[in-house]
Amino acid sequence: MKEVVIGFLGCGNVGGGVWELLKGFAPEIAHRDHVSIRVKRVLVRDVTKARSCSVPPELLTTDPADVLYDPEISLVAEFMGGEQPATEYMLTAMKNGKTVVTANKVAVALNWHRLQAAAQQSRVGLYYEASVCGAIPIISTLMTPLQANRIDKLMGIINGTTNYILSRMYQYGEDYDLVLRDAQKLGLAEPNPASDVEGMDAAYKLSVMASLAFHARVPFKQVYREGITRVTAMDIACGKEMGYVLKLLAIAKRDGSTIEVRVHPTFLPKDHPLSRVDGSFNAVYLHGHACKEMMLQGRGAGDMPTASAVVGDILQAATAEVHVHPTFANTAEPDASLTFTDNWKTRFFIRVSASDAPGVLARVAGCFARENVSIATMMQKDAVEDGRVPLIFITHAAPEQSMQAALRHLEPEICRLESVIRVEA
Amino acid sequence: MKEVVIGFLGCGNVGGGVWELLKGFAPEIAHRDHVSIRVKRVLVRDVTKARSCSVPPELLTTDPADVLYDPEISLVAEFMGGEQPATEYMLTAMKNGKTVVTANKVAVALNWHRLQAAAQQSRVGLYYEASVCGAIPIISTLMTPLQANRIDKLMGIINGTTNYILSRMYQYGEDYDLVLRDAQKLGLAEPNPASDVEGMDAAYKLSVMASLAFHARVPFKQVYREGITRVTAMDIACGKEMGYVLKLLAIAKRDGSTIEVRVHPTFLPKDHPLSRVDGSFNAVYLHGHACKEMMLQGRGAGDMPTASAVVGDILQAATAEVHVHPTFANTAEPDASLTFTDNWKTRFFIRVSASDAPGVLARVAGCFARENVSIATMMQKDAVEDGRVPLIFITHAAPEQSMQAALRHLEPEICRLESVIRVEA
Repeated sequence: MKEVVIGFLGCGNVGGGVWELLKGFAPEIAHRDHVSIRVKRVLVRDVTKARSCSVPPELLTTDPADVLYDPEISLVAEFMGGEQPATEYMLTAMKNGKTVVTANKVAVALNWHRLQAAAQQSRVGLYYEASVCGAIPIISTLMTPLQANRIDKLMGIINGTTNYILSRMYQYGEDYDLVLRDAQKLGLAEPNPASDVEGMDAAYKLSVMASLAFHARVPFKQVYREGITRVTAMDIACGKEMGYVLKLLAIAKRDGSTIEVRVHPTFLPKDHPLSRVDGSFNAVYLHGHACKEMMLQGRGAGDMPTASAVVGDILQAATAEVHVHPTFANTAEPDASLTFTDNWKTRFFIRVSASDAPGVLARVAGCFARENVSIATMMQKDAVEDGRVPLIFITHAAPEQSMQAALRHLEPEICRLESVIRVEA
Repeated sequence: MKEVVIGFLGCGNVGGGVWELLKGFAPEIAHRDHVSIRVKRVLVRDVTKARSCSVPPELLTTDPADVLYDPEISLVAEFMGGEQPATEYMLTAMKNGKTVVTANKVAVALNWHRLQAAAQQSRVGLYYEASVCGAIPIISTLMTPLQANRIDKLMGIINGTTNYILSRMYQYGEDYDLVLRDAQKLGLAEPNPASDVEGMDAAYKLSVMASLAFHARVPFKQVYREGITRVTAMDIACGKEMGYVLKLLAIAKRDGSTIEVRVHPTFLPKDHPLSRVDGSFNAVYLHGHACKEMMLQGRGAGDMPTASAVVGDILQAATAEVHVHPTFANTAEPDASLTFTDNWKTRFFIRVSASDAPGVLARVAGCFARENVSIATMMQKDAVEDGRVPLIFITHAAPEQSMQAALRHLEPEICRLESVIRVEA
């Protein structure tokens, strides 16, 4: 039987999950794949820290060289997270002839080209299914069964924390701050939730998925990003009344050589397949010229779902005779032939607080008309407060810049802008 | 640039779609994968038949040897359908050193072990993503990213024709015969619809998926099968009233060494993810011990979605340095260590037509009680006809055999059995 000796970089939740999954699944792996997998060393920051997983203490080390330079170790699995030192460790491991399996979206999004070049140079494998959306097989699906598609649209709910928060706000009408605090108590949001609620986490994942979908480098820095911190219970309630559900969507579209990539709160019609993806579930919806509409839904985070993807990669790496390196473009900068636009066309949900006086609606509507933004639906709530009433407009698709220009025409004394939320179909 | 020369076996809808997709996508393939793909010969039954695709007539042949024995052809793509002669042709092609890509569920379900042995012997590839559920990447997902899972449950809506029929019956209360005739007019059902409406099509696909999910041979003949031909508008309406949607489900479950595989009309709670998969969409829902719940949804049929999967396989085969052969069990007969049960535990929807007389309900309920089948919900419609009223029971989970025994206790003169439909959650 072939023995594959592994080193871990990191042993937090995901590393612990991978350890338990490998241990519990070893007999099946041996029986089915004729491979015995042995974890030899586990790099941690502090060997004395209490751990919930059953890694024997004698495997732990704080010296990265024990993993990266051990000639017996042929595969390194990385779950440290963050760009550095994870990237440098992976590069060193590959230079030393070790295949790398990583669950690190930041390192893959920012340094993919360097990692891939190192893998090709050393003729080792580089596997990263776990880096995006946990157990959902989006990386392998984009890389293999969908490779004969021109994908023009990919939209995902790819952050469980924000989806939990928005689902609860939608369902119970609760306020953002309250739900965030609850999510933190339940361990569904970090003590510092910025990376999730500001959309960074989703933007890293979108950069990786859009690169694969479009066969082109879509750098993280090109992703427009707007978080959910300013979302109000009132916007969600108004949208709900009009048949829309609010989600933090990661959106990538391609039209010829023009690409748009953006992460922001988005209203979706309530019968859209993504509208029903609630709580901590993740899902990626896409459209290709041959496959048509497709959606993959599942657990995008959590120790065992992420470990499922990591161990899937470990088994693939351990049984591969040759490691496959994708050949599509993947350089540090976007291809010169591509244009990234921030003037996308989309529909808009606009909430304003307007003076309750004759002629005001005409003047507000006039601001949109001046920029050729056409109104699809309007709702006026009869709740007058301080002489002002809430007005909600949903527009037809309009260029982002026209919309921003129209909003600048609003006269604050008669019409205060409260919210601008993009709407997708 | 590497040139890969291909022969087609068959040129119907799928073959035509593959031709068009390869033709339109050739520049991308050449640019990205450094592979040029040339279709040299296309086996058809009748070269004079009019075709909607643009295959040049000089490529057509009625002699299988022109494809199977041409030394220049290194890859054979099969879309003939049916067990024979497709299986023999594929075996011959592989014996002659050609890699095979197939969209043929029947051949894969019935002769997978022979096909795989031939591929291993000749060290060629065997690819069959397109054989199950069109563009939905269920084969590659089960084979690679999910391989570190003990999958205990897989449920799919994997036949578009029956899902179209049942969706319309649910939505509009229409009768089976009427919707079937419409579906035939629209090209969504075959002139002879038996393979779809009797569940054969779904059973072939389930056999393939369950084999991969359980890493064990699940022969087609083990799949219990019940079609949708006896489904009535009344059952669908009663189920709808009680919060259930009727689907033709393909279900595979594993509990230790016990396996159940069945295709039958099934009521699902209306908030189940599969309940919202309507019309000609397909979806596969599964649960694994590490990945947890997952659902893949998309176009399970149609020329371009199926061609998407075929060309994905062709590109994988064309760029592979080594073809991977799965090592898990895949023999002609089920493993001796497995038990196939037909005494599964499930909930039941029972509709009877009972005498409108005192004591009848007690006697009917008594029949269930005698077999320890417990009632969860009961609905009595007050529409009396010929002195009889419809009674609907939904039971708690009970073994199939207990349920069948209970139904045999019903006294036909006071209680006529109208429908028995299984319920899943």
